[in-house]
Amino acid sequence: MTTWPDNRRDMSWSDRFAGRMAHVRASEIRELLKLLDQPDILSFAGGIPDPAMFPIARIKDVYADILAEAGEQALQYSVSEGLTPLRDWIAAKMTAMGVPCDAGNILVTAGSQQALDLIGKLFLSRGDTVLVERPTYMGALGAFNAYEPTYAALDIAAGKPADAQLAYVVPDFANPTGRTLSRAERERLLDQAEAGDFAIVEDGAYRELRFSGADEPPVLALDVARSGSIEAARTLFCGTFSKTLSPALRLGWVCGPRAVVDKLTLLKQGSDLHASTINQMVALRIVSDGYEAHLERLRARYRDQAAAMQAALAQHMPLGVSWSHPQGGMFVWLRLPRGLDGAQLLEAALAEERVAFVPGAPFFAVEPDAASLRLSYSLGTPDDIDEGVRRLARVIASRMGGVRAA
Amino acid sequence: MTTWPDNRRDMSWSDRFAGRMAHVRASEIRELLKLLDQPDILSFAGGIPDPAMFPIARIKDVYADILAEAGEQALQYSVSEGLTPLRDWIAAKMTAMGVPCDAGNILVTAGSQQALDLIGKLFLSRGDTVLVERPTYMGALGAFNAYEPTYAALDIAAGKPADAQLAYVVPDFANPTGRTLSRAERERLLDQAEAGDFAIVEDGAYRELRFSGADEPPVLALDVARSGSIEAARTLFCGTFSKTLSPALRLGWVCGPRAVVDKLTLLKQGSDLHASTINQMVALRIVSDGYEAHLERLRARYRDQAAAMQAALAQHMPLGVSWSHPQGGMFVWLRLPRGLDGAQLLEAALAEERVAFVPGAPFFAVEPDAASLRLSYSLGTPDDIDEGVRRLARVIASRMGGVRAA
Repeated sequence: MTTWPDNRRDMSWSDRFAGRMAHVRASEIRELLKLLDQPDILSFAGGIPDPAMFPIARIKDVYADILAEAGEQALQYSVSEGLTPLRDWIAAKMTAMGVPCDAGNILVTAGSQQALDLIGKLFLSRGDTVLVERPTYMGALGAFNAYEPTYAALDIAAGKPADAQLAYVVPDFANPTGRTLSRAERERLLDQAEAGDFAIVEDGAYRELRFSGADEPPVLALDVARSGSIEAARTLFCGTFSKTLSPALRLGWVCGPRAVVDKLTLLKQGSDLHASTINQMVALRIVSDGYEAHLERLRARYRDQAAAMQAALAQHMPLGVSWSHPQGGMFVWLRLPRGLDGAQLLEAALAEERVAFVPGAPFFAVEPDAASLRLSYSLGTPDDIDEGVRRLARVIASRMGGVRAA
Repeated sequence: MTTWPDNRRDMSWSDRFAGRMAHVRASEIRELLKLLDQPDILSFAGGIPDPAMFPIARIKDVYADILAEAGEQALQYSVSEGLTPLRDWIAAKMTAMGVPCDAGNILVTAGSQQALDLIGKLFLSRGDTVLVERPTYMGALGAFNAYEPTYAALDIAAGKPADAQLAYVVPDFANPTGRTLSRAERERLLDQAEAGDFAIVEDGAYRELRFSGADEPPVLALDVARSGSIEAARTLFCGTFSKTLSPALRLGWVCGPRAVVDKLTLLKQGSDLHASTINQMVALRIVSDGYEAHLERLRARYRDQAAAMQAALAQHMPLGVSWSHPQGGMFVWLRLPRGLDGAQLLEAALAEERVAFVPGAPFFAVEPDAASLRLSYSLGTPDDIDEGVRRLARVIASRMGGVRAA
C-alpha cells in the first residue's frame, strides 16, 4: 500500500460526464419493475414474451448441432454486418413482405434496441427534431436521448408536414397502445415525410404477432412501391427475433438503402464489432425449419390471452374507462377517467390489490397524459388475467366513487 | 405499384448524416483483411484467437446443461448491468488482481469493444482530448471517433502532465506492439493523470495471456492502492472473455467506481438493453470450473508460437529490422529500416511471396510511422510461422538492396 500526500486531487467523476448525459436518465419504470418480482403480485407490467413459448428443446438441439458441425466458426469473430446466410434469410423475408432487397440492405444488430441506437448515432445531432407518437415506445426514447434530440408529436392526421430529421413509429400493435396504423395512415405518413423531407424509422418489433385481421403492408413496402426501389426509399425498417424466438439471443436487424446500411455497419463495428456469431448461426437454423408453425402457436397463445383480457375488461371495468382492442402484439392501453393518475393508481393497486401495470405518463415524450396505463397480457393464464383485471377494476372504481359498468 | 408525380422529392441520405460521421471511416485494414482469406497466403494479419484452442466440447455440454436446467431464464430478457452471479465472479477476479470490489463495480458488456464505446459516450464531447499510445489499438479509435475527440500522444516518460479528458492504454502485451508497461511506468501514468486530472481507460484484453515473466499489477490496482478505494479511483478497467474463451459470445466488462458503472449501465440499456442472457450463463459456468487449466493450455500454445516467431525473425530478418519481444498476447511489432513503408511492403509481400501482415500506419492516431508493421502469431503452426517470416524477410531484403542478417 503506497501512502500518498494529502494534497492528492480526488477524482470528481460527475464533473466530467459529457453534456449528453443530461438527457440520459434512469427509467423509473424499469426501477419499479424490479420491485414487482414478488409471487403474490398479479403483474400486467412486464412487456416480455411468454417464456413457456420458447422452443427450448429445439434451441438446445440446434446449439449442440452447430457446435458439433462448425464449432470453430461459431465461436470465432465474424463480420460486423452479420453472417451472410442470416442476412440472406432476412432479405428474403423482407422481400416476401413487399420490400424487394438483398443481403446488402440488411445489418444484423443486437436486438432492435441497437438498431435504434445506431440510427440515432447516424442521424441525430443536438436539437434535431424527432417526431414520435403520443404515447410511444420508451426504449426508443432511451436510445435516441444520448444524441440530444428534441421531440415533437407525430400527427398523422395533420395536413401540413412537420419540420423534423426523422419520425419514429411502431405501426403494428404498438408498444404501448396496441394500435395498428391503417394503410391510409401509412400512406399519409409517407406523404408527410416526402413533403417535410424527413426519414421514417419503422419499428416492426411486433409485426409477426398478428392474431386477428389482415396484415397491413410495412411502411417501407409502401415507400418502395412509390420510389421504385429500396435504394430510393426514405424508410428504415427495424425487425427483431426477440418477440418471436428469444430476446436473450440479442438479434435484430435494420433493412434500408445500402447508403444507410453501410454507415450503420461502420457504427456497429465501432460499437461492439458484431452480433454473437453462435447466436446468429442458431437463429438462422431455427428460422429455416419449422418456424412458421412455431409462430402460429405463439399467435394462438397471445390470441387467447388477449381475448381473456378483453373479456375481463368488458366485464369488470367501470363506465368511463376505455381501452384499445389490439389485433396482435402484447399490449392493451387503458384510458382512465379524467383526474385519475396512472402512477398514483399503481401505488394503490400494489398496496390494496397486489396487481401491477405500467403507468402511462413515461411513454409520452411530449405532453404526457397521466390518465392512462399499459397492460400486458403476454404472461398470464386466462384465469390470472381475469382475476388481475377484476382487482384493477376495483381499485379504479374505488377512486371514481364506485361507479360500475352496467 | 403506385405511380407517383415526377416532382416527388428524392431522399438524399448523405446530406442528413450527423456531423460525427465525418470522423467515422471504414478501416482500410479491415477491408484488406477480407481479401486475405485465400488458402495459399500465409497470414500474420488477423489478430484473432486460435480457434483450435476453443473448448468446443465443453461449451457444447454447457449450452445443453443450461438450456435443460434453466431454459426459460436463459432465453429471456435480463438486466442491463449483467447477471449478478457473473458480475460476482468478475468482481472476485478483479479483487484477486488487487482491485477489491463487488458486483456493483461491474458492468457486463458486449465484448470490451462495447466498453470502449460506452466510455466514449459517457465522457467524450467534440474536441475533447484523448491521450493514446503511439501506436495504439485501432478499435479503440473506432469506438471513440463517433464522439469526435481529438487525439494527442500519451508520453509516459514526460514530466509534465497533458491536458486531456482521458488516456487510453493497453498496459499488457499491447495491440499492436506486444509491449508491457513496467510497474514504474504505470505509477508514472497515474502521477500524470492525477497532476493533469484526467481519467485512465485501462484495456486489459490480453492480460491473461502472459506466457513468460511475472504479472504487473493492473493500473487500476495501483490506483486503488493510492486512493484507498475503487470508489476514489480514476481508472476504468476493461476486460473481455474474447481472447480467453470465445469472441463469439460477445462478453466483456468494465470495472470502476459505482458512480461511473451506474451511468455506463444506463447507456448500455439505451444501446442494446443487455448482453446475451444465455451466453452470460454459459460463460459463467465455464469459467467456474476448470478455467485455469484451459488458460494454461492457451498460454502454452501462444508461448510456443511466439517462440517460433522470435526464432524465425532472428534467423531470417535483415540487419536494420528490429522487433518487439512480448511476454504474452498475440503480437510482434516490427520496425522497418527508414524509408520503407509497411503498406507498400504489403502489396509486394502479397504479390511476390503470398505472405500477409498489417501495415503499421493505421495504428497511429497522431504522427504515423509508416516504417512499421504488426505480425500476429496466434494462428500459425511453428512451421508456417518460420516459412512466413522467411518469405517476409525476403521481401524486406529485396527492398533494402539485399542486405542480410549475419
